[in-house]
Amino acid sequence: MTVHAYAVERAGDPVQVRQYEPEPLGPLEVDISVTHCGVCHTDIGMIDNSHGISRFPVVAGHEAVGVITALGDAVDHSRLALGQRVGIGAYAGSCFACEWCITGRQHLCPGGDATVFRGDRGGFATQLRASDWRHVHPLPDVITSEQAGPLLCAGATVFSAIVRHDVRPTDRVAVVGVGGLGHLAIQFLAKWGCHVTAVSRSAEKADDARRFGAHAVVTPHDGFEDLASSFHFVLSTVSGDLPWDTYLNALRPQGTLCVAGVPDSSFTVHPLSILTGERKLAGGLTGTPAETRQMLDFAARHGIRPATETYPVSRINEALDHVRRGRARYRAVLEM
Amino acid sequence: MTVHAYAVERAGDPVQVRQYEPEPLGPLEVDISVTHCGVCHTDIGMIDNSHGISRFPVVAGHEAVGVITALGDAVDHSRLALGQRVGIGAYAGSCFACEWCITGRQHLCPGGDATVFRGDRGGFATQLRASDWRHVHPLPDVITSEQAGPLLCAGATVFSAIVRHDVRPTDRVAVVGVGGLGHLAIQFLAKWGCHVTAVSRSAEKADDARRFGAHAVVTPHDGFEDLASSFHFVLSTVSGDLPWDTYLNALRPQGTLCVAGVPDSSFTVHPLSILTGERKLAGGLTGTPAETRQMLDFAARHGIRPATETYPVSRINEALDHVRRGRARYRAVLEM
Repeated sequence: MTVHAYAVERAGDPVQVRQYEPEPLGPLEVDISVTHCGVCHTDIGMIDNSHGISRFPVVAGHEAVGVITALGDAVDHSRLALGQRVGIGAYAGSCFACEWCITGRQHLCPGGDATVFRGDRGGFATQLRASDWRHVHPLPDVITSEQAGPLLCAGATVFSAIVRHDVRPTDRVAVVGVGGLGHLAIQFLAKWGCHVTAVSRSAEKADDARRFGAHAVVTPHDGFEDLASSFHFVLSTVSGDLPWDTYLNALRPQGTLCVAGVPDSSFTVHPLSILTGERKLAGGLTGTPAETRQMLDFAARHGIRPATETYPVSRINEALDHVRRGRARYRAVLEM
Repeated sequence: MTVHAYAVERAGDPVQVRQYEPEPLGPLEVDISVTHCGVCHTDIGMIDNSHGISRFPVVAGHEAVGVITALGDAVDHSRLALGQRVGIGAYAGSCFACEWCITGRQHLCPGGDATVFRGDRGGFATQLRASDWRHVHPLPDVITSEQAGPLLCAGATVFSAIVRHDVRPTDRVAVVGVGGLGHLAIQFLAKWGCHVTAVSRSAEKADDARRFGAHAVVTPHDGFEDLASSFHFVLSTVSGDLPWDTYLNALRPQGTLCVAGVPDSSFTVHPLSILTGERKLAGGLTGTPAETRQMLDFAARHGIRPATETYPVSRINEALDHVRRGRARYRAVLEM
């Protein structure tokens, strides 16, 4: 079946439809007919070649939801079925043989099939192919396809940070940034049992942050100094350069600042921000298949849902520009 | 009994003897008649006022060994006895009431009695008083008093980093710097079961590093690039600014760079050095009382001993200058 993909030929160009015929299906592969795909800042980065690593044409999209249209011969048919509603996130495959895969850390597989770096085979298309069926996730019935999209990357990223840094329900935590990742992080941490402080430059987002579950809302430059040594865990969800010393000093001793957004330039950190109190600065990537499924289950149980704005794919250029300007409240989703 | 203390009146002055009469002994306090005290770079920093926080006169010294000459009324006499050989490290007391103390992290007590920041009551003296007996550590018989000194701060600092970052015997680790801390870190990690790579600018230290248990020795700028993604854990024991990106990139994914030395200026770290592979940068302080006792037991069992150079206290100025110039091989110890 011919695939219609929403491609950008070079940075700055509008999206145009490209058509291609898929290769024959490999034994571990799965095709899904995409119904919805979230729009992440990383997609904009690839489309705009912000990091200088894009290979054009770019078909972005790595928060895809749809139904299975084809299953390879080696897929376990007791776990996935034709017509089943499923999602694919930032990884669409990994080797399941390297030390990272066999220790449950498939997101670190050097041969991993990162959906977002695939070039012209992303999720902004009528069909997305997973290179390994174990990265295709069945979806809980109570989560709509529109809502499921943003959970698959944004949700998995913030959820896995909570899990990997062993955040406890008794912890006081801060979420820096109330955006695509941040608005989900607040929900997950509040349902995790934590006291959650949201940090946002936009005063207009304060009410939303509280609605998502934040117990307190502060701005980075007003009142934040009073919060020195307050948090067990700070999760930064913002791309760009932040006042790292301020956020590190907001940690209690032995606390962790996990950075899930991508800074524009180097971290500059005063030695005592790290040494005093044995604080930690850590990087956060996306979830593993197991974490993604735990996350979906946890979100289903607790009513955690992204706030979405749906665009028909015919208005994809408008949707991309909306996200590019930071205006999404809080995640744009394309409907194919 | 009059105390003779080896004091510096202002930065740059030579050490001179000051005498003082101790206050009456408090109920939790312990006096020890000091026989040996190690000389740490932090002592030099306080004497030279390198960090601008010294209050003169300074009596440095926080790796003290001696015998108990007085015990306060509230001390548990079944655990400490007059005449017993004991040691005191970087902390000589803490409140045992705050959340840090009651969760076993006495080194983070905001009211902790940090021996090194005490001003004129340090361990370079004929007598040192602990403000709480639970920071006074009995010493295993097989460790001489000269050897015990450097274990009490340098040893406890590197040992606690290994414990807190959950280093496993199967790990490959690197120790940056072969000095007072580094030569002990190599020994502890080798006996912990790890594969140990020592990193030193001084080619002349390579044989020593191997003797301490290192399986490999490299210099920071020659051959180190080949070690990208090699180590589960890197322990930096060097004061001063280091090529942080190089050491972070030497970590395997999810590995930790623990900094136990004090950098001169800010950390500058490329975002991808932290984000790629979810690496961590962490600060390391000294040991708790429980870790210090585990450390002494582990050192006793495994024959881990500092390499020491003993100076009679009459030659203290010479000893300090030797350490100041980085010439100690590997720890100077004063004999009172």
